[in-house]
Amino acid sequence: MIKSKIKPGTYIFPLPVVIVGANIEGKANFMTIAWCSVVENKPPMLSISASKGHYTNIGIRENQSFSINIPSEDLIEATDFVGMKSGKEIDKSKFFQVFYGELKNAPMIKEAAINMECKVMNTIDTGKGHEIFIGQVVQAYAEEEYITNDILDISKIKPLIYATGQKSYWNLGNKIGKAWSIGRNYKKK
Amino acid sequence: MIKSKIKPGTYIFPLPVVIVGANIEGKANFMTIAWCSVVENKPPMLSISASKGHYTNIGIRENQSFSINIPSEDLIEATDFVGMKSGKEIDKSKFFQVFYGELKNAPMIKEAAINMECKVMNTIDTGKGHEIFIGQVVQAYAEEEYITNDILDISKIKPLIYATGQKSYWNLGNKIGKAWSIGRNYKKK
Repeated sequence: MIKSKIKPGTYIFPLPVVIVGANIEGKANFMTIAWCSVVENKPPMLSISASKGHYTNIGIRENQSFSINIPSEDLIEATDFVGMKSGKEIDKSKFFQVFYGELKNAPMIKEAAINMECKVMNTIDTGKGHEIFIGQVVQAYAEEEYITNDILDISKIKPLIYATGQKSYWNLGNKIGKAWSIGRNYKKK
Repeated sequence: MIKSKIKPGTYIFPLPVVIVGANIEGKANFMTIAWCSVVENKPPMLSISASKGHYTNIGIRENQSFSINIPSEDLIEATDFVGMKSGKEIDKSKFFQVFYGELKNAPMIKEAAINMECKVMNTIDTGKGHEIFIGQVVQAYAEEEYITNDILDISKIKPLIYATGQKSYWNLGNKIGKAWSIGRNYKKK
């Protein structure tokens, strides 16, 4: 097999699918994004990157807070729908059962498997249209059904997986190995 | 079902598993991380976050460049192994077939499905031990076998999926929907 040059692109596989919540003028709004990651563990800090034109960004800037909600695969239609229409066009405040936590202004989705309310610690402009919000997780929420031995269980969460380029959602397969463990089988050729 | 407060944490599901490459004093080194995302599309820009103590970070700072390599599931043992041992302890320069591209100093892994060489555009200190490198993808590489109709095909790439907390690797399941499309079936309750 020969390696070929391909067009420079954002070929990270897999990407998560998360719903970001923010209040705009006191009203909940949500957007679906795949550009979300972890940047720090102590304290827990997450990053999202979103086009500056998004309606949700206005609320994040206004309140310096946002929520990240992890939908299970059974929420696929609602998740995709929220990503199709802007809050500038439609009122998304009633699409989900919304609840608030410690921050009081980061709307969370009861139907989602996991919720994290985040306080903005830093905002970075990419200079090319997107802004990166780095948020510290102030409080997190989940239902018991997603937990096994006090740990959130990905096989119960059944997260949506996003494929860049193909613009499609995929589900999770099976556990294939333990981290910091299966590597012991590796023999350097 | 009742939502319960859980310990604030970094509950993003799924996370990708990528191998980051950098040269340290002219020698290739690699580390495996799950904290990697997309932050911009035009031009393509990616982010990684890694503890400042990592050996690879030294090389990224030195050359202002790094590579991101996407391993397929058949590379699971080597991928995990590279994440277990620091370049401070062992020489990882010969673990993979290494090649260089436009930047000349961002080592890439021939055995990985996809490679992206990145030029550092911004470095952000989280203030708590990690640093975020934002890199622009200068050039990308893939073998024909991972492409369908000119698009990288996640079902052929078979990426590793990381589960935080459970510290385990999972594989991909099936395609369950088209983005910006399946949402049309959603009827607001």
